[in-house]
Amino acid sequence: MAKKVTVVEEILSENDRAALTNRAQLNDAGLFGLNLMASPGAGKTSVIMATIQALGDKLRIGYIDGDLASSIDVDKVAELGVPAVQINTGGLCHLDAFMMQGALPQLSLSELDLLVVENVGNLVCPSGFRLGIHRNVLIASVPEGDDKPYKYPAMYLGVDVMLLNKMDVIEAFDFDMEYFKRGVEILNPGLAFFPVSCKTGEGLDNWLAWVRSEVAAFKEGIVAVYEPR
Amino acid sequence: MAKKVTVVEEILSENDRAALTNRAQLNDAGLFGLNLMASPGAGKTSVIMATIQALGDKLRIGYIDGDLASSIDVDKVAELGVPAVQINTGGLCHLDAFMMQGALPQLSLSELDLLVVENVGNLVCPSGFRLGIHRNVLIASVPEGDDKPYKYPAMYLGVDVMLLNKMDVIEAFDFDMEYFKRGVEILNPGLAFFPVSCKTGEGLDNWLAWVRSEVAAFKEGIVAVYEPR
Repeated sequence: MAKKVTVVEEILSENDRAALTNRAQLNDAGLFGLNLMASPGAGKTSVIMATIQALGDKLRIGYIDGDLASSIDVDKVAELGVPAVQINTGGLCHLDAFMMQGALPQLSLSELDLLVVENVGNLVCPSGFRLGIHRNVLIASVPEGDDKPYKYPAMYLGVDVMLLNKMDVIEAFDFDMEYFKRGVEILNPGLAFFPVSCKTGEGLDNWLAWVRSEVAAFKEGIVAVYEPR
Repeated sequence: MAKKVTVVEEILSENDRAALTNRAQLNDAGLFGLNLMASPGAGKTSVIMATIQALGDKLRIGYIDGDLASSIDVDKVAELGVPAVQINTGGLCHLDAFMMQGALPQLSLSELDLLVVENVGNLVCPSGFRLGIHRNVLIASVPEGDDKPYKYPAMYLGVDVMLLNKMDVIEAFDFDMEYFKRGVEILNPGLAFFPVSCKTGEGLDNWLAWVRSEVAAFKEGIVAVYEPR
């Protein structure tokens, strides 16, 4: 009598398959990647520039910028002397793994330690598309308000670390930190969280230490699982 | 000999057809509508609440709120005593004309003068979907930065009026008003533009006067064209 065998296979989307390919390519190159997501104007580019300025002499950093239009961000970052690639999405609201496939060959991956990807400014759509990048980073910002975790849960659910930027203006806004943190904690318990100000530099040390320890852990092979986020 | 006739027909998307239906329904009810779009946290709900508080005794106002999740905004607005309907998009990044078709029958349209629709917080996707509403309103905000017209052109192209909110904190940010205005002017020449602060009330009078004059013009039949935006 024939045995009954049940085959369980996770059906990956086309995008997820492309993300797996990207992840393998980064891993093979020994290159650790961050995918920065945020609302428009929350400070993605400012965080990236501060990170390059602080760590550029310790890590070889590359930059991929996703924008609907304009080369404002990529021009700023390229001025810091890091290899920079622009993905112009032509109006599309997020980066996806296929756009990354187009951008990655523009960089000498094996000559870099850290790849920073700046996603399109959008608190909704980017969370739905895996890029194959190792860590998803959310830049929240004080002026956006303390209720954003409750209103945009998918973004808060899917990230590995969060910065809360523009702490220098918190007195000017009615921002209830406990309410904000409670919303984050419900969605993403124990999420690493750094309040910062790119303007004053407040709190950036903690973020920079996190980046360095993640890159080091990756280099030591602790993060060797081929599982795209 | 048969004559050659060329038929040129604009192919409307399914969404545009639904938008036309919505527009006809509003026009038949004598109800003028505003579609408010913005980044997360720019102040859509604050502008709406200020508008209801200032004009609620002069105009009968209804409210439709689009959000990914939570009833935070609709609860706040309903407390002001206006009929309020929530569209929970279930994670979708914008409102469309079909969602509006589901929401409109929840309101007594012919008993209202002004319908305010709050779109999902997103500076990209909502600009691509007509709702059938008479005027598209963009709420920009100072903390987002002065480069947003250059980075999110589709949104700035497609609106009939713009507010720049959070003017009370402009000193705390490096906001170049001329650079911002130049970006707007390139995309949308002559766009009606009101710098405001919902916190201090600064500039709101100009916005409220605009709303009243638009409603009055509509009531007088000046805006009778069945052309959805």
